Amino acid sequence: MVKTQQKIQIIPLGGLGEIGKNMTVVRYGDDIIVIDAGLMFPEDDMLGIDLVIPDISYLLENRDLVRGIILTHGHEDHIGALPYVLKQLSVPVYGTRLTLGILEGRLKENNVPLTNLISVKAGDQIEVGPFKIGFIRISHSIADAVALSIKTPVGTIVHTGDFKFDQTPVDGKVTDFHKLAELGDQGVLVMLADSTNAEHPGYTMSEKSVGVTFDEMFYNANGRIIIASFSSNVHRVQQAIDTACKYNRKVAVLGRSMINVVTISSELGYLNIPEGILIDIDQINNYPASGVVIITTGSQGEPMSALTRMAMSDHRKVDIVPGDTIIISATPIPGNEKLVSRTIDYLLRQGAEVLYERTSGIHVSGHASQEELKMMHNLIRPKFFIPVHGEYRHLVKHSKLAQELGMAKDHIFIAENGQVLEFTPEKGSVTGKVSSGIVLIDGLGVGDVGNIVLRDRRQLSQEGILIVVITMDKQGGCVVAGPDIVSRGFVYVRESEQLMDEAKNKVRQTLDKCELNNVTEWAMIKSSVRDTLGKYLYEKTRRRPMILPIIMEV
Amino acid sequence: MVKTQQKIQIIPLGGLGEIGKNMTVVRYGDDIIVIDAGLMFPEDDMLGIDLVIPDISYLLENRDLVRGIILTHGHEDHIGALPYVLKQLSVPVYGTRLTLGILEGRLKENNVPLTNLISVKAGDQIEVGPFKIGFIRISHSIADAVALSIKTPVGTIVHTGDFKFDQTPVDGKVTDFHKLAELGDQGVLVMLADSTNAEHPGYTMSEKSVGVTFDEMFYNANGRIIIASFSSNVHRVQQAIDTACKYNRKVAVLGRSMINVVTISSELGYLNIPEGILIDIDQINNYPASGVVIITTGSQGEPMSALTRMAMSDHRKVDIVPGDTIIISATPIPGNEKLVSRTIDYLLRQGAEVLYERTSGIHVSGHASQEELKMMHNLIRPKFFIPVHGEYRHLVKHSKLAQELGMAKDHIFIAENGQVLEFTPEKGSVTGKVSSGIVLIDGLGVGDVGNIVLRDRRQLSQEGILIVVITMDKQGGCVVAGPDIVSRGFVYVRESEQLMDEAKNKVRQTLDKCELNNVTEWAMIKSSVRDTLGKYLYEKTRRRPMILPIIMEV
Repeated sequence: MVKTQQKIQIIPLGGLGEIGKNMTVVRYGDDIIVIDAGLMFPEDDMLGIDLVIPDISYLLENRDLVRGIILTHGHEDHIGALPYVLKQLSVPVYGTRLTLGILEGRLKENNVPLTNLISVKAGDQIEVGPFKIGFIRISHSIADAVALSIKTPVGTIVHTGDFKFDQTPVDGKVTDFHKLAELGDQGVLVMLADSTNAEHPGYTMSEKSVGVTFDEMFYNANGRIIIASFSSNVHRVQQAIDTACKYNRKVAVLGRSMINVVTISSELGYLNIPEGILIDIDQINNYPASGVVIITTGSQGEPMSALTRMAMSDHRKVDIVPGDTIIISATPIPGNEKLVSRTIDYLLRQGAEVLYERTSGIHVSGHASQEELKMMHNLIRPKFFIPVHGEYRHLVKHSKLAQELGMAKDHIFIAENGQVLEFTPEKGSVTGKVSSGIVLIDGLGVGDVGNIVLRDRRQLSQEGILIVVITMDKQGGCVVAGPDIVSRGFVYVRESEQLMDEAKNKVRQTLDKCELNNVTEWAMIKSSVRDTLGKYLYEKTRRRPMILPIIMEV
Repeated sequence: MVKTQQKIQIIPLGGLGEIGKNMTVVRYGDDIIVIDAGLMFPEDDMLGIDLVIPDISYLLENRDLVRGIILTHGHEDHIGALPYVLKQLSVPVYGTRLTLGILEGRLKENNVPLTNLISVKAGDQIEVGPFKIGFIRISHSIADAVALSIKTPVGTIVHTGDFKFDQTPVDGKVTDFHKLAELGDQGVLVMLADSTNAEHPGYTMSEKSVGVTFDEMFYNANGRIIIASFSSNVHRVQQAIDTACKYNRKVAVLGRSMINVVTISSELGYLNIPEGILIDIDQINNYPASGVVIITTGSQGEPMSALTRMAMSDHRKVDIVPGDTIIISATPIPGNEKLVSRTIDYLLRQGAEVLYERTSGIHVSGHASQEELKMMHNLIRPKFFIPVHGEYRHLVKHSKLAQELGMAKDHIFIAENGQVLEFTPEKGSVTGKVSSGIVLIDGLGVGDVGNIVLRDRRQLSQEGILIVVITMDKQGGCVVAGPDIVSRGFVYVRESEQLMDEAKNKVRQTLDKCELNNVTEWAMIKSSVRDTLGKYLYEKTRRRPMILPIIMEV
């Protein structure tokens, strides 16, 4: 018989100290639920890597205890790891309709069966093992996003998911403040809350303010209008469509993910598309420029996106022309600033008008600023607090906000992925660590690209490679052919013949020396070649290419 | 006899459509002067490249006409190409004392003789060929910066250099508004002006405001204070030193470029260091924490800089401790945002207090915002205008500002590097193009890394390389040894033995097929191997490593 524990454990496996791959374990005795399972985009030094997901060794070690995965919303950093997780762990997945709709698309792409996906809606209460889970409507930059209340025998946990307090949401579905207040009244043991905008003072503006901006911009535009935004922001797309309707413009949608999201969300009823307003991209030239709006991907300057292709005159179906008004309805995610600037410059060079300045009201964030974060704290009034969904400085700032409201510093936990945070009704503490980390995905390979491969890619990217091939006689150990030298990414060979010839001489000298000193072990020969050649090349070029000696035996 | 031309040509060789490698040619008949000769830092896709400088083929083709190089100030993007230019072109270089002081350091590092460096000061007028050049004091984020007036027989050109209108400069040397007004009165044909902050409304705050912020922060700091800023901003360093003095703290300087600049500028009298205030970094532990300030490099999160090393607990002399207050007195240059964020996170993890938010007044720009740019236009009242020192959108914005003031659009030239802009007293037009472009510097190599090498580095960085070595018999054309396969940056070999074995089989099959079909030409054999192996690997891994077949002949 399982002993009742008067404690719960909260174990983040991703999302702390980073923005991305959110995944949090909640454990009570022998029952585990997982909140979200997201991916992260690779850092700049993760060369050639497509995606990063959390290391779920802990869940695999305890696979018999996992009762379900609960999703807060459909953004990639909350659902993107599921195709990989569900291949290893067969558990029910709970999410709202739009969230599951988006997830299904991902699972299909990855040939994962669509079983055990359980649809819930805001206001629902379900039981998963010993956990009573409530889904609470909140606003975010994607529709159908929820916060979670998790009642356990020890106390209630509230996870805000990603949220903002939008008092005038585009779909009219206001945050369930009453439920949040009720939870605060009843008593909440631990709250985990979204720290993304913890550095931003004040309030985040309502999504509707962008609609007002669209209206002004549409009013002033004479030619075609092209709006680039995050495809997942259904409400932004809704406002673009509504404004197009108001100004009697047809709407064409461009970009694979934009088309996908528009399709799913309109099928599921999250996007209202008036009859006859949508046209195919091939039809845009049948209408006057002043009668067309194109909604497209590419707001982050992503190289393969529709907007970037158009900017580079590289899109099969759309050319940018003078008279076009382009609205970049997003701000660059940190790291993407140069990509976005580059796209803007290219669009300007094509003669288009480009509206991209944050101050012009073309974009609002989907995350709560400081006053909203404080409001959430004052509604929930948790005993203990774990700031989540942020890089370290965001978590520190969020912690400071909580302290401003009177929370004691030792009731706040700035945690790390893998840490075990244990809570009783009275006490909270860090009691240990579990396996955690990152898994790199490159092409079809999951986790096979590790530090060594990355280290090699880094050297190759900066310095290139020099391959030295020598054919040696099996018996006598002398050189039969070579050394031949081939390089890639090092120097432009035509101009460096002398350098290469001298390099060959250096190798010959080294081989002669080895023979003279009776060095026959290949590892030692290769090592000498690498050393001598490396020193010589650095002296001549101040560069350090990877040097790869290969010995063929005949 | 040279025919007098009633036209001048302005030919930008760098600095347009980019921030960096500023270089502008002014030509009147058979006389050329060059304004600035800067470098640019490599773009993200210029793998392994250290620096980028302008292609000066045009100057080399006309070397007998070049009368001198005139420098506006000592930032790298205005002087950094000179070590390379002066190795190919022997001409006088004119600059203010601090500018030449910084330049001399660079020339020494590159073994370029310090000949023909002619010191000028603000207020001077000199003659270089047919050009009468005036040096006009302006404010920037480095001391001793000037704007230039260039009187020619056709008309006067004004080049603002990099500037802001700081009404309370730290060294008390206010912009020479009177001279600017006088030039405007006398009539200016063409103005070239700094577009860096053309997107910023309002005015840039005075450098002195940062001193006020320092004062508040020093007042509130109990432990050590560490200030990171751009080493070239002597006035920022001055204010740090002055505030340290006020609060009875000793000052240690950290970081090679910071030590260099502090040394040069105090020797030349641009930095006033009170007696006894400077201590060696080794002495900081001899003083209480509240009695120490460290001024350091690393405000851009540069990997090898002092601050970044300290953040990573990797600095030989200084460890960050709780109680330290760290002031990041800079904002991230576009592209550096993630590096800076990472450093801030690491510093916070060490328990330090980190002050980095722009809104807290820890940094002001060195470039004019919109109202100052308009003021410059209203003072100079040029007939024609070329916005410079900016990416395309900055130039477009600056052009719009000029139009707001009433300038006709066809009197404004949004130019490109290499374009020849010709002006008569009445007319301005683009009349052609000269050789222009970029030269990539990698280690000691100047210009030997071109597109092919970069393209190879990119593939290597994303996908790695697979080398297939085959030894073939000279006579019969059959395989004597191999195929051996070696990979780097592709997969982690231990886990991919099966893949590699099958890859070898594929290669053997291809070689057999070649033999069967009597294909003996090596190029064809290599091509077949590349094709077959490439297809196979993509099918199995969805990756495309570089495939390099090498045939050794015995």
